[in-house]
Amino acid sequence: MNRFEHARAAIRSYTLALTVCAGAIVPLAAAAPLAAAAAKPPTTQQILDASKPSDWRSLDPDNTLYLQLAAGRVVIELAPAYAPLHAANIKTMVRERYFDGLAILRVQDNFVTQWGDPDADKPDKARPLGKASKTLAPEFERAIAKDLAFTPLPDGDVYAPEVGFSDGMPAARDSKSGKTWLAHCYGMVGAGRDVGEESGSGAELYVVIGQAPRQLDRNIAVVGRVVQGMDLLADLPRGSAALGFYDKPEQRLPIKSVRMAADVPAGDRASLEILRTDTSTFAHLVEARRNRRDDWYKVPAGKIDLCNVPIPVRTPPAGKQS
Amino acid sequence: MNRFEHARAAIRSYTLALTVCAGAIVPLAAAAPLAAAAAKPPTTQQILDASKPSDWRSLDPDNTLYLQLAAGRVVIELAPAYAPLHAANIKTMVRERYFDGLAILRVQDNFVTQWGDPDADKPDKARPLGKASKTLAPEFERAIAKDLAFTPLPDGDVYAPEVGFSDGMPAARDSKSGKTWLAHCYGMVGAGRDVGEESGSGAELYVVIGQAPRQLDRNIAVVGRVVQGMDLLADLPRGSAALGFYDKPEQRLPIKSVRMAADVPAGDRASLEILRTDTSTFAHLVEARRNRRDDWYKVPAGKIDLCNVPIPVRTPPAGKQS
Repeated sequence: MNRFEHARAAIRSYTLALTVCAGAIVPLAAAAPLAAAAAKPPTTQQILDASKPSDWRSLDPDNTLYLQLAAGRVVIELAPAYAPLHAANIKTMVRERYFDGLAILRVQDNFVTQWGDPDADKPDKARPLGKASKTLAPEFERAIAKDLAFTPLPDGDVYAPEVGFSDGMPAARDSKSGKTWLAHCYGMVGAGRDVGEESGSGAELYVVIGQAPRQLDRNIAVVGRVVQGMDLLADLPRGSAALGFYDKPEQRLPIKSVRMAADVPAGDRASLEILRTDTSTFAHLVEARRNRRDDWYKVPAGKIDLCNVPIPVRTPPAGKQS
Repeated sequence: MNRFEHARAAIRSYTLALTVCAGAIVPLAAAAPLAAAAAKPPTTQQILDASKPSDWRSLDPDNTLYLQLAAGRVVIELAPAYAPLHAANIKTMVRERYFDGLAILRVQDNFVTQWGDPDADKPDKARPLGKASKTLAPEFERAIAKDLAFTPLPDGDVYAPEVGFSDGMPAARDSKSGKTWLAHCYGMVGAGRDVGEESGSGAELYVVIGQAPRQLDRNIAVVGRVVQGMDLLADLPRGSAALGFYDKPEQRLPIKSVRMAADVPAGDRASLEILRTDTSTFAHLVEARRNRRDDWYKVPAGKIDLCNVPIPVRTPPAGKQS
């Protein structure tokens, strides 16, 4: 099996939804045999293959959104531990079918894809928010707490005193201020706001599609993470107006629906599991990514950036359906 | 003028090709007035507006590639100071029209878009390289030298002892080893290789389309940077085979042609200037990005990552055509 076929098999086995798990830059012609596994430190795939069922957790259907586009379904896990008001407000809107028929309004290259009501600024045409709040208190950071998961990443960070993972989400914290917050890595979802701190509601959401814009951290509410279908939000035509907004209404991509997984018949739900970030399996995975030891890499990096760590997502093996 | 219109005007004035210059996450409804410029530190746009003509340099036509796709032209600046053999080999191939009619083979979400000969692995069908070399010595790093530009960025870095900018390219260096190298930031272009260090030629090239895969630094030859048209390489459908390769030949995106700017009639050349990264204007720009002081940002980051620094590209103002 050559490197290419090996990788293909790996992808068959696991749904690595956020392919931060990017491999080497091999030309199509690459055909070097894999070294015998025993002689080498384990690869990412071998570590995942050796994981225990308890290393994985299922998505909570009451905390999971399905954003349906013509091209497919995007699965978003909310982060109520960090943005409880926003998460609850978004769920209210979803259950009112607020988002159905709205659109992707903005795709700014190397920054964000953003969706919401194109008429939000027109009082006579804006879609009403129903029982949802029009504005919410800022949830840009929260207090560090013992019952809030945090697995530190010891590699350092340009932006924050400390970074790590909190229940499958990249996070940062500052022991001086006693605060913690979610980090704007690729695939993280936030709630757009106006200039006022309390001007966000979750009615307009964005997802990071480029280099982590960490300058947004602590300035806006991060509400969750795309765990599957990220490519559907990243491969869209960039908007040509300012900030990547689409110039013409017909360029906007319609949102067919947004549903809570809990409101979808069980048979139509995405059966996905997230690797727990407080496990030794995850720690081994981080180490394997920090120091690539396969034949292709000549110089292991020795360090890894918070936003370069893959947080694996899989379809549970046969026999264990969540 | 509201924030939205201001940004639109800014984009009218300047071709910020790599929109790392991403603004705030404003909903479409945002309409807060800009504070009087005098009372605030200058914005990115004000800094660029105040730049001197000597702060900018023109692209060298003999060092600039035009990658022509059906959707438009991608402009790539080569980096012969870091990869002289690869740059020369690529120029040889371009002048032999090696790339014309080849294709984009691979788009891996949050990683790279890669192009070359789909039949490179078939000796009987592979397109011959002509006078170009099939393999080159590795140019993964080079010696630090006095005549090699390097403007340090003092913000720190997870991966390298020191980072900064070298003639408009993000770079890193290590005074202990005496080596320096270009960094895999968004928009940087590299030469794919097989497992052998000397297996690259520049016949298969990739560009970074996601979170900076800095683990590739010093493992592969970085040969240049996309200075315009990055969106044309980033908004492509992701490939569904392993490593983002397209499953079916018909999914590949044809390359119409690749030309050296010098070989294109002067009137058909892209008239672009790059902000010099060794100027005080660039230093002011970095500071403005490190500490956003506009009304939207509540907490300035205080730091900036190498790969979050925009390297502005503009169409020269009327009256000064390069």
